[in-house]
Order: sequence, then structure tokens, then C-alpha cells
Amino acid sequence: MKSDFKLSIQLNCPLPKLDFDIITLGHGSGGLLTHRLLESGVFKILENPILNEQHDGALLNFSGRVAFSTDSYVISPIFFPGGNIGELAVNGSINDVSMCGAMPQYLSLAFIIEEGLPMEEFWEVLLGIKKASEEAGVPIVTGDTKVVERGKGDKIFINTSGIGSVHPKANINIARIKVGDKILINAPIAQHGVSILSVRQGLEFETTVTSDTRPLHRIVKKLFDECGEDIHFLRDPTRGGVATVMSEVAKQGKLGIELVQKQIPIDEQVEGACEMLGLDPLYVANEGVFISIVSPHVADRVLKILKQNFNMASIIGEVTEAHPGQVILQSKIGGRRVVNMLPGEQLPRIC
Amino acid sequence: MKSDFKLSIQLNCPLPKLDFDIITLGHGSGGLLTHRLLESGVFKILENPILNEQHDGALLNFSGRVAFSTDSYVISPIFFPGGNIGELAVNGSINDVSMCGAMPQYLSLAFIIEEGLPMEEFWEVLLGIKKASEEAGVPIVTGDTKVVERGKGDKIFINTSGIGSVHPKANINIARIKVGDKILINAPIAQHGVSILSVRQGLEFETTVTSDTRPLHRIVKKLFDECGEDIHFLRDPTRGGVATVMSEVAKQGKLGIELVQKQIPIDEQVEGACEMLGLDPLYVANEGVFISIVSPHVADRVLKILKQNFNMASIIGEVTEAHPGQVILQSKIGGRRVVNMLPGEQLPRIC
Repeated sequence: MKSDFKLSIQLNCPLPKLDFDIITLGHGSGGLLTHRLLESGVFKILENPILNEQHDGALLNFSGRVAFSTDSYVISPIFFPGGNIGELAVNGSINDVSMCGAMPQYLSLAFIIEEGLPMEEFWEVLLGIKKASEEAGVPIVTGDTKVVERGKGDKIFINTSGIGSVHPKANINIARIKVGDKILINAPIAQHGVSILSVRQGLEFETTVTSDTRPLHRIVKKLFDECGEDIHFLRDPTRGGVATVMSEVAKQGKLGIELVQKQIPIDEQVEGACEMLGLDPLYVANEGVFISIVSPHVADRVLKILKQNFNMASIIGEVTEAHPGQVILQSKIGGRRVVNMLPGEQLPRIC
Repeated sequence: MKSDFKLSIQLNCPLPKLDFDIITLGHGSGGLLTHRLLESGVFKILENPILNEQHDGALLNFSGRVAFSTDSYVISPIFFPGGNIGELAVNGSINDVSMCGAMPQYLSLAFIIEEGLPMEEFWEVLLGIKKASEEAGVPIVTGDTKVVERGKGDKIFINTSGIGSVHPKANINIARIKVGDKILINAPIAQHGVSILSVRQGLEFETTVTSDTRPLHRIVKKLFDECGEDIHFLRDPTRGGVATVMSEVAKQGKLGIELVQKQIPIDEQVEGACEMLGLDPLYVANEGVFISIVSPHVADRVLKILKQNFNMASIIGEVTEAHPGQVILQSKIGGRRVVNMLPGEQLPRIC
């Protein structure tokens, strides 16, 4: 993907002027150039009282149970329909913390940049981070910047770690899933994977499908506020898709899982693209999708809450006594087949 | 550096047998291969009750002030005299949390692996992580594994984030540094940088110098136990060395700093190597070194505590009313010179 883009986000202040128009090894030295990069741009764009302290780490306050999660983002290309690697990195760790039943409060941010990254692409990524962090209300409180030589990285990799207090009514654990529990999904599957493929070198195709990257902590909070401990389990099916996550849950929890294909929401264009590319959408990566496994008596209430924000939310299956450790899919044409984990690598560097 | 090493750490169990002798893209898919890699090796080697939950994140307990820090490690080569990238990544984030006046309690661990990394090198790194984590008593509680194509990374990059409760008697803040405060160092400088250079391609030279990678949280705890709020500031001079960190403190705190070169401990071999390579050891990276800035009336007590573990600990300077924002070095031959931040990139990928 070429870098002939305009900054997509409006800043209140002009972009910092630096002596360089690309990132150099010196920007990762920890010395003068690192400081200039941070002080002239990064700290200003991401500013908040904790980050402004500029210490080796951030000082926070907690009491009680806290969830802590980490993810590195190596997606290629770094700009894609619906977002960039920066937004993905912020939303991704927010969602991982949310899936633990916690409310994400703080993020760390660590860059590994390939020497030669155009400075304007770096700012664009940073603005994606700022936008996602502000929209979610979760500040970046500590960070790190490393630079590697040309050919030893690929534009930019980002790690975010997230931390937040567990919701007082949350009790998420695979061991709490029971036979008869209902399985729900909030939104249509495979959007993220298809949107990335549509701009991947050698594969480009016309589509209006955009990534579904978004923070899920607010909807998760609503579920706990209203249904508390009846929410037994949450997980976001990113890499490996719905099939892999469900298969993981079945194996780890020694549970039988039955999914009904016609209940699993999918956009027509996404379905068409998957057919064209020979991909099973059940294995394609999502970013703004999550699975809830809940007591049967709250399933309709959970569905109603999900529908307030996601009109394609759906009950897609249930936990069965039969075939523990296995996921069975009732296909659209009436057949039944076993769903396994993604065996190899379907789409490398999808997140 | 060639990979003709033997595993340096003894395991109680045999190393896992996998179908592959290199890391493939599939190991980062989030699917079956990722699970096999994690279940057959990673979880077993790093096991602890929190990690064993295998959720999207870890559930921890805190009350009160907590320090949170992140760092990515891109060191090259990944194996070096005195350690490997795994130990460095564990000790590095432990030290960053310690420098905030906190006791590191938990770490996250995220890999970005280049396709083709020999499996035995991966295990060796993992065993370095296990060893460092066990020696420090700080468990890995959550993690992530990504794989990028050949030529899009460089063997392995590691991010660790650390978290821990602030010591009840700690109050570390640059604003608390006062004129007259003494500046101490625990150990001789420039060892880490010189040890890495001695094995870097094209530069190899004979030396017995090893990296000083080590955890500093126990000695930091002792300082707070005994001297509490009289410890005004701590920082570990990694990238950019002592000169850059001191210059940073002077600028950020608008303080004058006076250093006495002959008081700054340095190993003879390290000094010789720096001369040979044309490097100023004040700018060379350290890993197990930290600077304390303390009330003058506890300086001797701090020195005594440091000396219990580090026989070359020393008072290396003080905070002055004169020349705020500047670091002045009294050189060995009696001259005085201004010490600035590292201007460019001295030694790329030193940590």
C-alpha cells in the first residue's frame, strides 16, 4: 500500500516539525533524537496527567481484583479500510481486558519501528492511537520506542498491555460454563479478515467491507450491570475466528458445543469474498466481535442488550451434554460437521 | 552468532517434542500450531497458577498504588556473554518497575518471532525467561505469540510489561530532588554494551566481560526499608548510558548536576574496550546499574547498603545550585566538561 495518504484525523495543534522525514536508528537510541521525537510529538499527542510524568513507569491506584493482558500487533498492511495498526492495538487490548470481565482503565504502548518509516506514517498511526484511546476513555500511561535496521522489521509493530479493575458483578471462568448455557454473538463475523485481505499485496479486490475494530468494554459493562454472574464466559474470536475459539473452549472446558450456522450473522459481501477466496468465514479473524456464554434464563435479556448496539446480534448455539470436547455445526443445508481449530496459517499477520 | 549452542539450563522434564524444528507462520496463527506450541512447551516451562488459567488476561489482586511499565527488547545478537534476550526482557521490566519505587510482582510476555527461528533457540530463550523469572520471584502471568515472515523481523523480539505495588515508604519523584542531594551508583558502568559489542558481527573481540543483566528489586527494597523517603529518585541508565540519564534528570528537573569521573566505577577491561572502540563509557548501555539520588544525610548509609551486594558501589556526584539544567563532569585529569545526551545512535539494538 502506498503512503500517499493525507492525515485522516484533525489535530488541534500543527504536527510537530522535526529535522527528519523518516524514522532513523537514532530515534530508538534513548538519546537526544528519542527525546525530541517524544517531546515534540508523542507526549503532546497522547498527553494525560499520568503520561506527562515521563517516568520509567506509571503510578496507578487499584483496589481489589485487576485484569492484566498483553498483545503485540504485527498486522500488514498497517493502514487498512476502517483503521490502522494504532487503533487496532488500542482496541485489541481494551477488548482482551474486557473479556476477563474487567473495565480497562490504562494502557501501555511499545513501538518497534523499522528504520525508514516515513514520519507522516508514524504520526498517522499515533493519531489512530489517540483517537481510539480517547473514544474508549482509556489513556496510554507508559511506553517505549525501539528502532531496528531496514529489513529487520516491517514498518511498525506495536505492543499494548491493558489493565483494569474487574467488574464487581463479574465472575468469568471456563469452569462456570454449564450444559444448557446459550452462546451469543454480538456482530457479523469475518469482517476484519476480509477487509485486510482486500488491501493485501497481490490479492486486492473491490469491496466496501471495513475492519470491525472497536472497543467492547462499554457493552460488556452493560451485560455485567444487568446480568452479573449469569454471564459465565466471554471471548473475542480474533486470530483463528469463531471456529478456533469455540473449539478451544470445548477442549479446555471438556464441553460439548453445538452451533447453528444459519444463526451466525455474516454480511453478504463478506460471505461472497470468502467464497471467492476459498476461505471458511468461521476461521476468519474478527476484531469487534465477542462470544458470550450465559445462563439460559438470561439469554433473551442478553440478546436484547446486545441488540441495542448491534442489530445483527444473535443466539448462535448452546452447550450440550453430548460430544464433550467437540464443536458440532448444524450447516445451512441441514448437515452436521465437526469444527476443529484452524490447522495451519490461514491469513498471516491479520492482527 | 551461530546457533551451535547446547541448552544452558537444566530442565526437570525433557524438552517438548514438536513436529517442527523451526518456528513457522502457523505457530502465530492462533490456531492448532499455536496451541501445540503453548501447551507442549511454553505453559509447562513457565507454569504458575495464574498463567495456568490460560485466559485472555490474568486476574491479580492489588490495593493501593501500583507501578506499571513496558519495554520491548530487540537486542542483537539474541545470545550474548552473560545472558540472552529472554533474561534481559525479564530483568529489564523488573528494573523499570523497581525504579518507580515499586516491588515488581507480575510480568506479561509477548513474542514477535521471525519465521524460521530454530526451535532450540526458542526454547533456550524461554529457559532464560524461566530462570530470570524464578530467580527474581516474579511470575509471567499472561502472554502473546506472533510470527512474521522471514525478513520481516530478526529472530525474536520480546515485550514485557511489569506491574507491582509501590513500596509503602517510597516516594520517588524528580520534583523531590534537592540541591545538595548525593548521587550514587551501585556497580561499574558500560559492561552490558561492551559485552554485546564483543559478539556483534564484524566487531568480535576477545574479552571476558559479560552483560550485567540482573534484577534490582531486592536491593531497591532494602533502600526503601531503611531510608524510605530520603531516597528521592532512582533510574537505571540503560540505552544512552549514565550521561544520557543524568542529562535527562538535569533538564527535566531544572537541576545542576556535578559528576566526578574518578568516582564512577568501571572495570579495566571495559575501559580498555571502550578506548579501542572509540566509545565514551558514560554513553554505553548498562542493564544492572542504577543511579540513586538521596538526601545527603543518608548518603553514607545508602552506600553501605549498596556495598553489601556491590563492592564497587560509589558516590559519584551531587546536585548543585549552579548550572541548572546542565551536567558537569570533573574529569580524571582535572578538567571540567559539559555532559549532554547521546546525540545520535551509538550502538543500535543494545537492548
